[in-house]
Amino acid sequence: MTRLTLAIDAMGGDFGPCVTVPAAMQALASHSQLHLLLVGDPDAISTLLTTADSALMARVQIFPAGSVIASDARPSQAIRQSKGSSMRMALELVKEGKAQACISAGNTGALMGLAKLLLRPLEGIERPALMTVLPHQQKGKTVVLDLGANVASDSTMLMQFAVMGAVVAEEVLAIRSPRVALLNIGEEESKGLDSIREAAAILRDLPDINYIGYLEGNDLLTGKTDVLVCDGFVGNVTLKTLEGVIRMFLSLLKSQGEGKKRAWWLTLGGRLLKKRLVKRFGHLNPDQYNGACLLGLRGTVIKSHGGANQEAFTAAIEQAEQSVRRQVPGRIAARLQAVLPKSD
Amino acid sequence: MTRLTLAIDAMGGDFGPCVTVPAAMQALASHSQLHLLLVGDPDAISTLLTTADSALMARVQIFPAGSVIASDARPSQAIRQSKGSSMRMALELVKEGKAQACISAGNTGALMGLAKLLLRPLEGIERPALMTVLPHQQKGKTVVLDLGANVASDSTMLMQFAVMGAVVAEEVLAIRSPRVALLNIGEEESKGLDSIREAAAILRDLPDINYIGYLEGNDLLTGKTDVLVCDGFVGNVTLKTLEGVIRMFLSLLKSQGEGKKRAWWLTLGGRLLKKRLVKRFGHLNPDQYNGACLLGLRGTVIKSHGGANQEAFTAAIEQAEQSVRRQVPGRIAARLQAVLPKSD
Repeated sequence: MTRLTLAIDAMGGDFGPCVTVPAAMQALASHSQLHLLLVGDPDAISTLLTTADSALMARVQIFPAGSVIASDARPSQAIRQSKGSSMRMALELVKEGKAQACISAGNTGALMGLAKLLLRPLEGIERPALMTVLPHQQKGKTVVLDLGANVASDSTMLMQFAVMGAVVAEEVLAIRSPRVALLNIGEEESKGLDSIREAAAILRDLPDINYIGYLEGNDLLTGKTDVLVCDGFVGNVTLKTLEGVIRMFLSLLKSQGEGKKRAWWLTLGGRLLKKRLVKRFGHLNPDQYNGACLLGLRGTVIKSHGGANQEAFTAAIEQAEQSVRRQVPGRIAARLQAVLPKSD
Repeated sequence: MTRLTLAIDAMGGDFGPCVTVPAAMQALASHSQLHLLLVGDPDAISTLLTTADSALMARVQIFPAGSVIASDARPSQAIRQSKGSSMRMALELVKEGKAQACISAGNTGALMGLAKLLLRPLEGIERPALMTVLPHQQKGKTVVLDLGANVASDSTMLMQFAVMGAVVAEEVLAIRSPRVALLNIGEEESKGLDSIREAAAILRDLPDINYIGYLEGNDLLTGKTDVLVCDGFVGNVTLKTLEGVIRMFLSLLKSQGEGKKRAWWLTLGGRLLKKRLVKRFGHLNPDQYNGACLLGLRGTVIKSHGGANQEAFTAAIEQAEQSVRRQVPGRIAARLQAVLPKSD
């Protein structure tokens, strides 16, 4: 494994450096070839590093940034005033080749806009999309996009998301001729929004895409498809609904039996079942797969949840590391030319 | 309790009479004042009633219908050709005052269109909406709408959904000054689709609505609101996503430990925990709350899942019974006049 450098917007997210800095140290401890550039308020970052292991510190560099983009700022305004902000500087480090990827838990709209501005979309892509990989019941994985990079999407954008998703499924997850489906409110052809029906018509005619039709929300985890495509609004609400239910389940499971006096053997039996259930559902724990990849750019950008904790932000850093090692943007670019319909 | 008559589209849904007829008998057995009109193919229905209890049979009447609206038919076409169909005849029984409500598991679009045509919307309502009541973590309930009666919704429709939802929360769930939220992809004012931001502006100015702002998908079950409003596409995908996860969890829980040889005391401890978890999650089992109410009409129409089993279809019949007893349409009509902004 070769040396790999990632830039971290240390100020982004609900907790800023309190989460990003310990997560960075955790990632460094597990990946010996990893170097991290922490971009943000140097004082706030340094304070959190005073007790850090000196061996790890040799692979950390702090890049001072004078401002932070607020998570509730209007993206357009935030982008105009972004100069010197931690998010923009982290992206610039990627643009300048000083880092191979950037991770931020900050304002999604601003990150999307700045990434598009600085790293530019791949040829054939109008708008990048946020993608994640969800584990499903058949023990495989489903690529889901867009998760909120765009609020509304027309049929051309949905088609491009489908192509990018198929490339990720094929090149990264090693699924041959991945099945591609559109998320809709029914499986019949006549169902849903115009944009979805039009995208279906385009996808049916793309020879390199294994388009299988519409799927409904209840099939999100059933493994009926390898790629599931939707607009950013629906994708965002769907993923957050899923996360809400899983979190509720895991917290309920954790609290079960606590504080109750019961025979030790009953407790032990319960614990065994609990352990198995957490294992089965743990892989759906949002903290395990935090980090959505902004697909369609000439560089790797990972968006972490704003509310990510240390474990979750570490997962996002590791996703960036994987994406760089597997050369996702390059592979997408190469495949796009073959798969996308020629404009002439 | 007084006598109450409901009309059932016996042919609707994936399984037709095989599910609707046994469900009807189950509902009759639990509700002594209930009378049911079964509309559909008389032979198919009668065959399923040959072994039925004669006391229950005294409260059943079969209404022969010559055709069935296919679940994958285009609503517009289905409505044009609906004469003599089981769905239309069931709705006509409500219109003619022979039944107080109608239940169907058939084509949602056709049911919505026919119900609007035959039972007409309440004054001040442009389009009816599908509503359900979801149990939440604070042990209360949240009214959620629209679940798919309309594919797209403008700000006026969203506002009307909010008003109808608030009336149901107040009049049926007995929640004083119910909190009303819009489902969105962020909590900040600048987030989301134009229609949602415009609806927010209208709702903030309605004096009789306790509008609390935006909520995200992960708050669907947290009990932060009493009424959650969204367009039909998003509502449908969200509810089906929720159902998919809960079904997966319940089936996983059921299968845990089966076929494994283990000390009896370990098995017993596991079973205790399992029982508690099923109890906690069972109330989220889609079969328990099946049946979405078509709100905004001058009559009660309950849409069951197409794939409902006997238990689920029985729940839909019981929801119709509740809605009639609590005079939901009448109460909504009365309150709408006070709450809706005057058009003059």
